[in-house]
Amino acid sequence: MRTIKLTLAYDGTDFAGWQIQPSSKTVQATLEETIEKITAVRPSTLASGRTDAGVHALGQVVSFRTESRLSTEVLQRALNAVLPPSIAVLDVANMPDSFHVIRDALRKLYRYVIYNGPVRDIFSLRYAWHFVRGRLDADAMQRAASSLVGKHDFSSFETSGSPRKTSIRTVYDLRIERGRGGQAHFITLEIEADGFLYNMVRTIVGTLVEVGRGARPESWPGEVLQSMDRRRAGQTAPPQGLFLVNVEYPKVALPKAVGYLKR
Amino acid sequence: MRTIKLTLAYDGTDFAGWQIQPSSKTVQATLEETIEKITAVRPSTLASGRTDAGVHALGQVVSFRTESRLSTEVLQRALNAVLPPSIAVLDVANMPDSFHVIRDALRKLYRYVIYNGPVRDIFSLRYAWHFVRGRLDADAMQRAASSLVGKHDFSSFETSGSPRKTSIRTVYDLRIERGRGGQAHFITLEIEADGFLYNMVRTIVGTLVEVGRGARPESWPGEVLQSMDRRRAGQTAPPQGLFLVNVEYPKVALPKAVGYLKR
Repeated sequence: MRTIKLTLAYDGTDFAGWQIQPSSKTVQATLEETIEKITAVRPSTLASGRTDAGVHALGQVVSFRTESRLSTEVLQRALNAVLPPSIAVLDVANMPDSFHVIRDALRKLYRYVIYNGPVRDIFSLRYAWHFVRGRLDADAMQRAASSLVGKHDFSSFETSGSPRKTSIRTVYDLRIERGRGGQAHFITLEIEADGFLYNMVRTIVGTLVEVGRGARPESWPGEVLQSMDRRRAGQTAPPQGLFLVNVEYPKVALPKAVGYLKR
Repeated sequence: MRTIKLTLAYDGTDFAGWQIQPSSKTVQATLEETIEKITAVRPSTLASGRTDAGVHALGQVVSFRTESRLSTEVLQRALNAVLPPSIAVLDVANMPDSFHVIRDALRKLYRYVIYNGPVRDIFSLRYAWHFVRGRLDADAMQRAASSLVGKHDFSSFETSGSPRKTSIRTVYDLRIERGRGGQAHFITLEIEADGFLYNMVRTIVGTLVEVGRGARPESWPGEVLQSMDRRRAGQTAPPQGLFLVNVEYPKVALPKAVGYLKR
């Protein structure tokens, strides 16, 4: 048996999220069926985090154990040949058996895209929140976001219902920018943290948009954070603007046992 | 009666092209039904050129005549409210009755996008030709394209079946570039001409790709042009990479008769 780490991109539009559910098409079920076709054994996959219906991934990380001796290159080609076009395997790596895709994650980067122009952008309908009721002030949103950076109890920005030990997380960086030139109608928010609570990015976006449209002062998101009361925060922004961009792990040396497998 | 010029963007994926056809969803039929809902009269629309099934538009130009006295702003808002999400009206203008959307077009700009990376890009499947069988040499394609710029008989690059007086066209510019940074897997071709024959852009792309993948020398596209024989050219590249970007018209002064209509 060996432990494999997959890096996946997927378009979340047509999936009911990552996690297997009865009678819904999910990324996890599709991936496990594909691995079974290639290795003849249905694996149990584990992702760095679940993504909800409609949420996309540019670099989701998934692990599973297998007895297959296919090289990582052959495994990647076979997976990409069998997977539907909306899922792509970007990388396959052999990992030590001690690797744990959730516990070992050091930090995650999410991106949220808002389209904010006068007329809808038909090519980004599936990949951005279309906010066309007036112009958002991205600079005000950036200033308001500064109070969320650092180690805080983020329970104001958590949708209840997901089990977790603590609601304290450390946000390392939170950048909000309006594009330039041909991208001037797009506002991109990037947030990097050691972990995220359920719906945390989408609730932060919904809250900062209240500042961007002038309905709340720049001091408000900090007050919402302090209150530790979800009812004080803004709406949960819709899923199609959200991308899991990257999950960072410690650099590890390959154990000798899998050293014969080319990487 | 007045003459209206619409500038449209549309995602061609779900349409059987621009032109009305029995029992197929087309952009023209959808637009005419929408205008009828707003003005109570079904118009006859005319486009600067037909686009095929799967081909997109960033700036298609369409004209129609109407007795409606709605201002251009109100007409644009109403059209965008009723049209499906995959069509957007970017601009509405009043034109002199002498305006002819095909005859008056001075030049057109098309863009063709090729994805050329090692693993499929799931977010551009509908908007690029995925060419993943090896790396294309965009610089060689650019050099080979130089023989196509200028006034030539382009019958080698025309799919027969479309009526036209002459197969002579003037290509003003033909630029091929590989993107940089995060766009390095995308090759973009932009071609500007006084007009295009049926499938001309897609056949030029299919021909230049033969040079890019090293199957033909850089001198070959020029020889194909000289031969005036469609069978000599490369394949017709698939529709989803093609975008009608812009149609240029002479600047005209509004006639007094429609001067009361706000613009």
